[in-house]
Amino acid sequence: MRPRYRDLVTPEEALARLLARLGPAGGLPAEELPVAEAAARVTAAPVFAAISSPPYHAAAMDGIAVRAADTAGASPTRPRVLPSPAAALPVDTGDPLPAGFDAVIPVEQLNAADGGFEILQAASERQHVRLKGEDVVAGELLLARGRRLGPAQLGALLTANVTRVAVRRRPRVAILPTGDELCEPGEDPSEGRVIDSNSRMLAAMVEAWGGAPTRLAPELDEPGRLATRMRAAVAEGADVLLVLAGSSAGRGDFTPRVLAEVGELLFHGLALMPGKPTAGGLVGGRPVLGVPGYPVSAAVAAERLLKPILAHMLGMPPERPEQLRARLLRPLPSRPGLEEVIRVVLGRFPEGFVAAPLGRGAGAIASLGRAHGLLRMPAPREGLEAGAEVTVELCRPREEIERGLLFAGSHDLALALADDALCEARPGAGLSVAPLGSMGGLGALARGEAHLAGCHLLDAASGEYNLPHVRAVLPGVAVELHCLAHRVQGLCFRPGEARRASSFGEVVAHGLRFANRQGGSGTRLLTDHRLGQEGVRPEELRGYGHEEFTHAAAAEAVRSGLADCAMVILAAARALGLDFVPLAEERFDLVIPAAALGDERIQALLAILGSAEFQARVRALGGYDTRETGRVRRLP
Amino acid sequence: MRPRYRDLVTPEEALARLLARLGPAGGLPAEELPVAEAAARVTAAPVFAAISSPPYHAAAMDGIAVRAADTAGASPTRPRVLPSPAAALPVDTGDPLPAGFDAVIPVEQLNAADGGFEILQAASERQHVRLKGEDVVAGELLLARGRRLGPAQLGALLTANVTRVAVRRRPRVAILPTGDELCEPGEDPSEGRVIDSNSRMLAAMVEAWGGAPTRLAPELDEPGRLATRMRAAVAEGADVLLVLAGSSAGRGDFTPRVLAEVGELLFHGLALMPGKPTAGGLVGGRPVLGVPGYPVSAAVAAERLLKPILAHMLGMPPERPEQLRARLLRPLPSRPGLEEVIRVVLGRFPEGFVAAPLGRGAGAIASLGRAHGLLRMPAPREGLEAGAEVTVELCRPREEIERGLLFAGSHDLALALADDALCEARPGAGLSVAPLGSMGGLGALARGEAHLAGCHLLDAASGEYNLPHVRAVLPGVAVELHCLAHRVQGLCFRPGEARRASSFGEVVAHGLRFANRQGGSGTRLLTDHRLGQEGVRPEELRGYGHEEFTHAAAAEAVRSGLADCAMVILAAARALGLDFVPLAEERFDLVIPAAALGDERIQALLAILGSAEFQARVRALGGYDTRETGRVRRLP
Repeated sequence: MRPRYRDLVTPEEALARLLARLGPAGGLPAEELPVAEAAARVTAAPVFAAISSPPYHAAAMDGIAVRAADTAGASPTRPRVLPSPAAALPVDTGDPLPAGFDAVIPVEQLNAADGGFEILQAASERQHVRLKGEDVVAGELLLARGRRLGPAQLGALLTANVTRVAVRRRPRVAILPTGDELCEPGEDPSEGRVIDSNSRMLAAMVEAWGGAPTRLAPELDEPGRLATRMRAAVAEGADVLLVLAGSSAGRGDFTPRVLAEVGELLFHGLALMPGKPTAGGLVGGRPVLGVPGYPVSAAVAAERLLKPILAHMLGMPPERPEQLRARLLRPLPSRPGLEEVIRVVLGRFPEGFVAAPLGRGAGAIASLGRAHGLLRMPAPREGLEAGAEVTVELCRPREEIERGLLFAGSHDLALALADDALCEARPGAGLSVAPLGSMGGLGALARGEAHLAGCHLLDAASGEYNLPHVRAVLPGVAVELHCLAHRVQGLCFRPGEARRASSFGEVVAHGLRFANRQGGSGTRLLTDHRLGQEGVRPEELRGYGHEEFTHAAAAEAVRSGLADCAMVILAAARALGLDFVPLAEERFDLVIPAAALGDERIQALLAILGSAEFQARVRALGGYDTRETGRVRRLP
Repeated sequence: MRPRYRDLVTPEEALARLLARLGPAGGLPAEELPVAEAAARVTAAPVFAAISSPPYHAAAMDGIAVRAADTAGASPTRPRVLPSPAAALPVDTGDPLPAGFDAVIPVEQLNAADGGFEILQAASERQHVRLKGEDVVAGELLLARGRRLGPAQLGALLTANVTRVAVRRRPRVAILPTGDELCEPGEDPSEGRVIDSNSRMLAAMVEAWGGAPTRLAPELDEPGRLATRMRAAVAEGADVLLVLAGSSAGRGDFTPRVLAEVGELLFHGLALMPGKPTAGGLVGGRPVLGVPGYPVSAAVAAERLLKPILAHMLGMPPERPEQLRARLLRPLPSRPGLEEVIRVVLGRFPEGFVAAPLGRGAGAIASLGRAHGLLRMPAPREGLEAGAEVTVELCRPREEIERGLLFAGSHDLALALADDALCEARPGAGLSVAPLGSMGGLGALARGEAHLAGCHLLDAASGEYNLPHVRAVLPGVAVELHCLAHRVQGLCFRPGEARRASSFGEVVAHGLRFANRQGGSGTRLLTDHRLGQEGVRPEELRGYGHEEFTHAAAAEAVRSGLADCAMVILAAARALGLDFVPLAEERFDLVIPAAALGDERIQALLAILGSAEFQARVRALGGYDTRETGRVRRLP
């Protein structure tokens, strides 16, 4: 219908087009600052020492200053007494060497003597003396240009009495939010409004990358206004302009068109996911980026284009995050023709790291906030198999990853409380969740790709929870099942509607739309079990094929009217103010390999399970019973 | 004589003693901030989503909103027209799904049709719809406590309409410089005064580690005053107090004693070099560190004790710098009983990284400023052999290391200009110097432990420079010798004293004290050659055994009166305002293996050698001739 992106370009090609037009690296004007105020800035000119350091010959030990010639012949068998002050002057480390003296004898090698000091060995010239200029000589190069000033560099400059330093001005980045639908944080974003979180997130990125951000007042989706604002931002001195949203190819997306009108459009559309709806060009010689509106797309596009542009302006190499190799927990199909950036959480195992992919949604900024790292899947790739070796760029400190536990299986609200309690008990610790469902979690555990699994799997034959399934998936493996809690499952409805049904039979009878859970989840198993008990066939239940992946999502589907009821835990219903009809109580077990019980991270978790404080927080969620929390069952 | 340190403790033991008294991790009071102002802060409480995100069902593509039921049966062979607006409403990505509609058909799969849109396939319910709460559901845990807020985390909080966040207060670190000899940067630090650079360096470290530094007014070395100031700093709310200098065991070192009086001394003296003269204890329950006066000691002690204390207070794991494995360029003897921290520069080679140790002086902050990383040599170690595999903690970005060249050999002032020019030509590039002397540099090159070497080695027999020595040390290896410059060597004297001697014979005749260079240096070879020519025996020359390691240091020895003359290059004499008597012109060659000529770093360097701008800067140093700069000679 309408033309979409004319041609997608790789992020590398997009960056090359922009950089080719920006002039040489490090081209920003210099400014001079007092050294003490120049932390994290980048030198704009070579820095030379103003004075020698140390600025005078100085004692390098506590002891006495002597003339080496006076000490000749002294030995333990023939000690010698040097009269003070004529031939021996007490000095401490750092004291200037008194004029005429040329060596220091340390206090450990001295004895006090009448009128002076007894020495037991001869001193050589310049012994224990820090010579003037030993560290640096006046005029020596301290730092080349283009170097970032850390604390040690500041110390070096000040020690050489350099008091002011020429640094590159921080690139000024103007951030222009656009969109008729924008609202401020704290306002009600219902009715199609969107909270302007991106301008704040990008401002924080600009700061972290050495730039000086300015958030401009938002603008409406109107080409004439946008053109005026873009011209004005550059005229007012922006080194870079970010135009937020409006860079896609929808009816209200004017950034690429306006960019082409008031300046030059260099590309529109990246072969990158998330990040595809990005545009770039120049206005008045300044780079302008049209940044996608989805938060993760915005973050990825900024990382790939804005970060290297700022580094180029500062004359720095773009800093690459620390990387590590990891084994992929589950397969990743590729999207042909696009490089994809996948958020992952990581777990440390004796054999190395395991990477568990998180959701791929471009809007799912929460998963970016929880991710340990990013995995780049290049465009031509045919997807990745489970178990593949991958390189992950870290976005959290490595310590946090090394101290964390990787949980696979069914999600439960009590796990978030355990995560928080772990963080409190042990800085940097925590529990990352790979939401694979109860059966998926046991599979990951069997492959050694999770520290622990969590499940609530009813065995219909025996009526027993978890043990039979664990035995089947992990035959012969020594594991312990630690009870997390018992919890109530039931049907949730919008407020006031619970009276409509208290069984699946009534749900079907009233033609209510159900929101189901994905196959392999414990809740799906429970639903199927109940349907069987009631003699209701799946095809009779409207929405049986509507699969949600978490309790919270299923409850939200009901609250938002997409479905009329769903099987969830009480706490999920309560969190969204829904009515709830209890149907069953189930046992949620944490499954832990016996071999991992000595791991200090597991021990910290088990201590939390047993604590009264944790159990009280779990009960406060509602619908939880902790009568067996922490109770252990062993297999085989 | 006087007791020194009673017993040295390891940094780990010292830290354990302090942390044992500080209460649980993350114990600082919380403060609430607007999310947009909380960048880099640490959460003090778990953060839960205030709203679901997205806050409504939204189109995930540009296209039309439809009811899936209306589309049943459509196919490429049997297209179907949906009337607009009754059954099809144009929507763009992010728009709320209009009430009653449940799917989106992307614009690529549409044709405009009379009164509506033609579709070519049926839509399924919820297709291309971002469901309300798909990213995060109201009440879900977004972040546990103890997590640092980066841009992505800020974005996640704002998207879930969290506008204020409880973060841990930044630990308040009071920095108290002490010493009768302190002066401010820019003042004249001669006559035994010391520039207070450490308080500024430590303030920058505190900032980088998440604390809030306050530099207090300096105090004199007087126990009563120190006691008052220490009590006052804690009373005024410091969470940590750093008392700078005064923590050694000299006569003016009162920190440990005063700490024991007004509070509790937990240790005095670390089994760590640099960093040994460190004291630690508590005043009013707050940790107090007596930080050594030498800048590198102060930096190392702060890294080992202050950084983990601040992390503990914030409830974070201390961040470990990125590490890499490297091969050691030259042997490192150990100091028994002490862990030693060695500054190194690194070079990237096809086989891995090479680490070249820099000077060990505790005062040599310039070398810390230039270091790429630190190597920890544990206490019980018997030293390290050349070629040993070591782990290096990086203190510069890895890109800078990977883009840099590692030069070994004789130092020359023109190399600093090449370093600066490389940095300008290619962000992050540069030239790190392992100052091994001319012969040492060729040896490193032979072992593949330097990218290039630099030498000025006279062959006495042939009168030829460099070629004969290179042939001898690198037999059969294809190398190129690129002329850096010709330069003038001669004798330097304090101003007005040059008339005293214009040959070594006259130096001896007047009994002048000479400052020599180390064995293996080209200048030492030249000196020996000249002595031979003049028929002067080394033992006749006063100070022949006085070895300095650089031209600059030899010149400084003369300026400061430690010697009366030295053999240096003109530029070194001129930099310090010394008189100069030229004796010889020598050729300084860069020796580069032919196999490395394709390396882009080497190519960048060669381009600089050939540039008129670089040659002009070299000539401006004085005593340099660039008539053959860039000229190549090949071996074998």
